[in-house]
Amino acid sequence: MNIIDIILKKKNKLELSEEEIKYVVENYVNDNIKDYQMSALLMAIVIQDMSNDEINYLTKYMINSGSTFDLSKFDHVVDKHSTGGVGDKTTLIISPIVSACGVKVAKMSGRALGYTGGTIDKLESIKNIKLNLDEEEFMNEISDIGLAITSQTKDIAIADKKIYALRDATGTVESIPLIASSIMSKKIAMGSKNLVIDLKVGKGALIKNLEDARRLANIMIDLGKKNNMRVVCILTNMDIPLGNNIGNSLEVMEAIDILKNKEDNDLKTLCITLASYMVKLGLDIELEDAKKMVINNLNNGLAYNKFIELINYQKGDLSSLKKQEAKYVIKATSSGYITNLTADFIGKLAMHLGAGRENMKDAIDYDAGVILHKKNGDYVTKGDIVMSLFTKKDINTNIEIVTTNEKPMEEKLIYEVIS
Amino acid sequence: MNIIDIILKKKNKLELSEEEIKYVVENYVNDNIKDYQMSALLMAIVIQDMSNDEINYLTKYMINSGSTFDLSKFDHVVDKHSTGGVGDKTTLIISPIVSACGVKVAKMSGRALGYTGGTIDKLESIKNIKLNLDEEEFMNEISDIGLAITSQTKDIAIADKKIYALRDATGTVESIPLIASSIMSKKIAMGSKNLVIDLKVGKGALIKNLEDARRLANIMIDLGKKNNMRVVCILTNMDIPLGNNIGNSLEVMEAIDILKNKEDNDLKTLCITLASYMVKLGLDIELEDAKKMVINNLNNGLAYNKFIELINYQKGDLSSLKKQEAKYVIKATSSGYITNLTADFIGKLAMHLGAGRENMKDAIDYDAGVILHKKNGDYVTKGDIVMSLFTKKDINTNIEIVTTNEKPMEEKLIYEVIS
Repeated sequence: MNIIDIILKKKNKLELSEEEIKYVVENYVNDNIKDYQMSALLMAIVIQDMSNDEINYLTKYMINSGSTFDLSKFDHVVDKHSTGGVGDKTTLIISPIVSACGVKVAKMSGRALGYTGGTIDKLESIKNIKLNLDEEEFMNEISDIGLAITSQTKDIAIADKKIYALRDATGTVESIPLIASSIMSKKIAMGSKNLVIDLKVGKGALIKNLEDARRLANIMIDLGKKNNMRVVCILTNMDIPLGNNIGNSLEVMEAIDILKNKEDNDLKTLCITLASYMVKLGLDIELEDAKKMVINNLNNGLAYNKFIELINYQKGDLSSLKKQEAKYVIKATSSGYITNLTADFIGKLAMHLGAGRENMKDAIDYDAGVILHKKNGDYVTKGDIVMSLFTKKDINTNIEIVTTNEKPMEEKLIYEVIS
Repeated sequence: MNIIDIILKKKNKLELSEEEIKYVVENYVNDNIKDYQMSALLMAIVIQDMSNDEINYLTKYMINSGSTFDLSKFDHVVDKHSTGGVGDKTTLIISPIVSACGVKVAKMSGRALGYTGGTIDKLESIKNIKLNLDEEEFMNEISDIGLAITSQTKDIAIADKKIYALRDATGTVESIPLIASSIMSKKIAMGSKNLVIDLKVGKGALIKNLEDARRLANIMIDLGKKNNMRVVCILTNMDIPLGNNIGNSLEVMEAIDILKNKEDNDLKTLCITLASYMVKLGLDIELEDAKKMVINNLNNGLAYNKFIELINYQKGDLSSLKKQEAKYVIKATSSGYITNLTADFIGKLAMHLGAGRENMKDAIDYDAGVILHKKNGDYVTKGDIVMSLFTKKDINTNIEIVTTNEKPMEEKLIYEVIS
């Protein structure tokens, strides 16, 4: 078996065998297959696609490339994943909510790259917080408080890490087979038997349309079934940012406001839905009952208490989080309904202000970001403040807020649920 | 401009601009674009193709990436290229023939990779021969004897060298735009204004069918026109090896036999055709007149004398060339017309015997190879000697000669000429 023949086979849109996929994953991990060969194969996969069998084998050998977690000593464990969007701080809100409902959360989270955020970066805006838990610390925390969030524990799905970094540098990110196997190899290796996926669709997401989203959802559900994991995919809108705050410390503060019932917006609505499905899976109860528990635990403050418990357990100092003075405010220059504050636009703006990283080595300004006082589709009168910008940089603030006189159709927040 | 956007554009089958192609070539040569990014782009090009404009720009910036030759002080200069096949030693025969006709040949040749041969490797089987001429030596030799062959002179088309090595390692060789720009960038940089291309089609060639061959021919002719170069493409059969000897010193000996008029086979027929087109272009005369000159200079021994002059000028010692004893002979195990001695089969066999290299670092056994006493389509009687094998290795000689009772259709040697 050799890599050139395998590349040529995929280039010619032929199906790779289990042995060939095993060969590729194992030999890429041990450096026998070079980056430049793997990227040629990845591009062939992006363009020529993969069958469900191929995706299944790829996932299997990515799982086998690293360690796996055994969470079987815990009951009611549910994992959660978001495919990534702008202003997406749902993990910070949902994890304590469902934990307050008696569902255990063992969460390994990632960092931001490009303009979509990463939960670990957001949490790192909290002073002193410890996020690189080792396996024992991670398991102890789940035992003690029913909830733990870590950046990395063991070497989960080593092949995925290596492949993902390469995809990011070679324009081979947008592929349903590669996205599905990347997500599911990590999640299956993490050991939870229940998983809720927030599958973002739209301008600010990797997946741009519902057709692709449905295919990805069905593939991930199928991979779950083959690995004894129940998967629910919730297809949600990422044409506009989620919530009002974009940026690391700004997003933690918005999450706290939601948990304190100080804020009621699209973010809260989505968090209640996602949390309800997690509680339904984790406790094996009806969705309506799960939803009642979720709302109850949010309203009575137990979810917020659980958040504080989590941060304290991981040695974080919340007193360091303080709302800064906005460096710039952007006002409407016309009256009408806003049309141009899309997720990708705001995501790139926040990254430009210092909230994200263009390359993995870039440093983040944890306080940088955007507060949206008005969102796309909202009506503004000329002179209204639309955005506050937080940054240490001097930037060109000549940002036009485009408006229209026509009231836009209201956008759906949640498109559909597939399970 | 950045490489990821360019990769994504080509992945989506969009046309790259001149500026984008310039950016890619320049930044790949200076290492700003990494091998793993270039190979992803190359795979996207292989699958999604390129427009004629894109091919033109790619060729232009590959030429610009290196030095160019100025041959304008010489009259009647013609270059020759073969897209590569098994047993293809035409350069060794044609160059002295056309030189004897008064046409100047300034030839830069390559090495073998895979099972297709390289003229430089073949010539290196001649003891002491000097093939790494510097520019002055190269130009002097053309002045003195009207003919020179070198492995490398200046840094011609540096980008092509780097891209070609990468293509070879990443399964991205088979692409008409990439083949066309690779050949033509080197040829245009070499400074000749006339070029005859032996475009091999078939099982042992890069181009497998006539449709692809015609497209490649027309693209190369067009690239020639844009660069003030007359190009003639001769589409020839590479389903079976050319001539009877395959292997480096074996091929030099067969070339000498042709030049000495000791042999009359498909190789000789093809050489007369290729040489006739070179003389036609170089002297600007009718093809029929050119052909008469070619046959005349072959028959009267002047072509052979020119070959000896070339080898002597480059310090080669022909006395070192001696026919070795065959290590194995392969006999027919049935009677009938041979069907399985295709170019790819014999090419791989010769490589396995030591005549070729699988990797650029492999050493070559100059005496290894195959003599075909019978070729595909020939009738054999059980027990007839079909092949002699030359090698220093001990190999499994259980090679079946497959025969059929049905007389096969005679194959065309030359399909068509495009100019």
